[in-house]
Amino acid sequence: MSGVTLPGPTVGVVGGGQLGRMLAEAAAPLGVELVVLDPTPTCPASLVARDQLVADFDDQEAITELAERTDVLTYEIELADPAVLAAVRDETGTPVQPAPGTLETIQDKLVQKRTLAEADVPVPAFRPVESPADLAAAKRDLGTPLMLKARTGGYDGRGNRPVEADDDPADALADIGGPAMVEEFVPYERELSVLVGVGRDDSVTFPVTETIHEAEILRETVVPARCTDGVRSEATAVAEAALAELEGRGVFAVELFETAEGTVLVNEIAPRPHNSGHWTIEGAMTSQFEQHVRAVLGWPLGETTARAPTVTTNLLGDVADPRPARLSGVEELLADPAASVHWYGKREARPLRKMGHLTLTDADGDSDELLARARTRRDETTFTEP
Amino acid sequence: MSGVTLPGPTVGVVGGGQLGRMLAEAAAPLGVELVVLDPTPTCPASLVARDQLVADFDDQEAITELAERTDVLTYEIELADPAVLAAVRDETGTPVQPAPGTLETIQDKLVQKRTLAEADVPVPAFRPVESPADLAAAKRDLGTPLMLKARTGGYDGRGNRPVEADDDPADALADIGGPAMVEEFVPYERELSVLVGVGRDDSVTFPVTETIHEAEILRETVVPARCTDGVRSEATAVAEAALAELEGRGVFAVELFETAEGTVLVNEIAPRPHNSGHWTIEGAMTSQFEQHVRAVLGWPLGETTARAPTVTTNLLGDVADPRPARLSGVEELLADPAASVHWYGKREARPLRKMGHLTLTDADGDSDELLARARTRRDETTFTEP
Repeated sequence: MSGVTLPGPTVGVVGGGQLGRMLAEAAAPLGVELVVLDPTPTCPASLVARDQLVADFDDQEAITELAERTDVLTYEIELADPAVLAAVRDETGTPVQPAPGTLETIQDKLVQKRTLAEADVPVPAFRPVESPADLAAAKRDLGTPLMLKARTGGYDGRGNRPVEADDDPADALADIGGPAMVEEFVPYERELSVLVGVGRDDSVTFPVTETIHEAEILRETVVPARCTDGVRSEATAVAEAALAELEGRGVFAVELFETAEGTVLVNEIAPRPHNSGHWTIEGAMTSQFEQHVRAVLGWPLGETTARAPTVTTNLLGDVADPRPARLSGVEELLADPAASVHWYGKREARPLRKMGHLTLTDADGDSDELLARARTRRDETTFTEP
Repeated sequence: MSGVTLPGPTVGVVGGGQLGRMLAEAAAPLGVELVVLDPTPTCPASLVARDQLVADFDDQEAITELAERTDVLTYEIELADPAVLAAVRDETGTPVQPAPGTLETIQDKLVQKRTLAEADVPVPAFRPVESPADLAAAKRDLGTPLMLKARTGGYDGRGNRPVEADDDPADALADIGGPAMVEEFVPYERELSVLVGVGRDDSVTFPVTETIHEAEILRETVVPARCTDGVRSEATAVAEAALAELEGRGVFAVELFETAEGTVLVNEIAPRPHNSGHWTIEGAMTSQFEQHVRAVLGWPLGETTARAPTVTTNLLGDVADPRPARLSGVEELLADPAASVHWYGKREARPLRKMGHLTLTDADGDSDELLARARTRRDETTFTEP
């Protein structure tokens, strides 16, 4: 490992949402400054980062400026354009981490799954769907229900469409409205996520996280995950095998299904810090955000051991229509000795928008108790009229 | 407790050094924005806070603007002017926490000690010194060595001057060059610090911190402090009694001497987060900085239990002359699984200037081992030519 000096290099981040904000919060104590690029002038990261370039995620001129002002580029949204990132890297010489090719592989869910399957990483049965006939064939071969997915652009359940036995293939495909793939529906016992920091010389895996989704949006995470130690080991091994197929440094999240038989299948990979890893801020020796900064800079990775049982719950916009963001009922949360609150600074609450999260960590707590308590704390808060 | 809503109020801070920076780092996740006032445009807090007013600490016009832009004022340096703060509070209606009168009491070391002594809080023997004759009398009555102190303006040992038996009183007083007081020299066994968050409805005390000074500058802190449980209880009780004499909300640090007989005397009080509390960022359930934000806002105070044994060491400028700040040898520090690094973003290293600190926290560690390790890690770093 060559010498590291402070102040550290400056990091450019494509995207300035809550992930960019928490990256900036983690970078500040390290003496690392962040410049973010985001089209929204008051984006969550804007107040914490050193500076913001107001530009679209695929604005090559602006990203070139970002690269020229910083020592390494990374991204906190999958909407970044890998071709633009590669072009900027080649033009400016500023490295991009993880590699643009990795983002390209991950952005196309079909390519992502093929890459994993070819490396014998266990994934749900899948196939491309280019026509209603393809989908009809998949219904016959894989059975129903199926999950039809847009190959690109989906997140938080957007771009996903369940297909039942009596659904018309043409209708289903029209709902997706673009290139698609289909997967068997996995009747999972539990969802898990494994966060891995991939550094210059090694990679370090965080403790397995249990994730709880509702309507395909992450609601809670639970650590330790309530699975067997065998499943825990398997999940870690599968995640590490999956990441061996992808180039570049940074924190990756591998989302997994645990089946009723106790096997593990890869659902999706995110080439960035992830909502399932927010618990690491208070709950692990190093947060996923600090680890991402260390990883993209080629610095030694931090220790990832859990400090204590930790549960997070998202604070989602529980509003019918967009309105200025104002969360009330926070006093019980602040008064809970185990609780930490994270507010993302978004100006507007929208239905199911991620507005913040709360973390409960307690050395004497257990997963079930902390989860129930986190839900109580969350339900005491509400978005109200300003 | 009345309702708390997010985003939280905006806090104005007089002073933008490392304490202001770490306040801003702690405020961001809470949805609380900070505006700092500091004469140095690139002050440590400037990059993390929402905004900075570039002005002197006693610039009434600028502090009025700060008060008008924020919901509560606080200060992170004792150099703030209590009369100006009180005038701004009265003019704008913006509360100042802790109360300006508290700052006034603390700024004058003689008034501070008298206030404590009158409330029967144990302090070293002291007396005012207005003339060489006063100092000569103190030498006779209290014995030598003595510590002669400037009543105002001293910090990190500046303004303090030991007086030995054969020192000339007039020479000693000339070195101080202003209003002075003198104290008996306490041959302490150990120095301790007790941080207390004083909130709207209650106050919460952090675990007792052991502090290690060299040439009167704090070098290391050790938690748990290596004193007996009896001394720990006594230190906590004395600190709480001392703070009962001071008005206003916020985090206070009470610095104490533990004598050879196991009694405890108050050395000095700081009406703000303090270097002896930096360990709380990783080592306590709530950091002193988050606690200060909660306290000045009147929010519920956070839990202060220690997460694990924790040692900090300051990274002081080990340079002969001022030079651009560049710390090398940081890789061993980053690679230590127990270590966290905090860099304050100062542009220039100066002799003994506080440039950053490092924290080692380890649930399986003990105070002696962690202290030795922290010193090793610190000594591996060095300020080098850029």
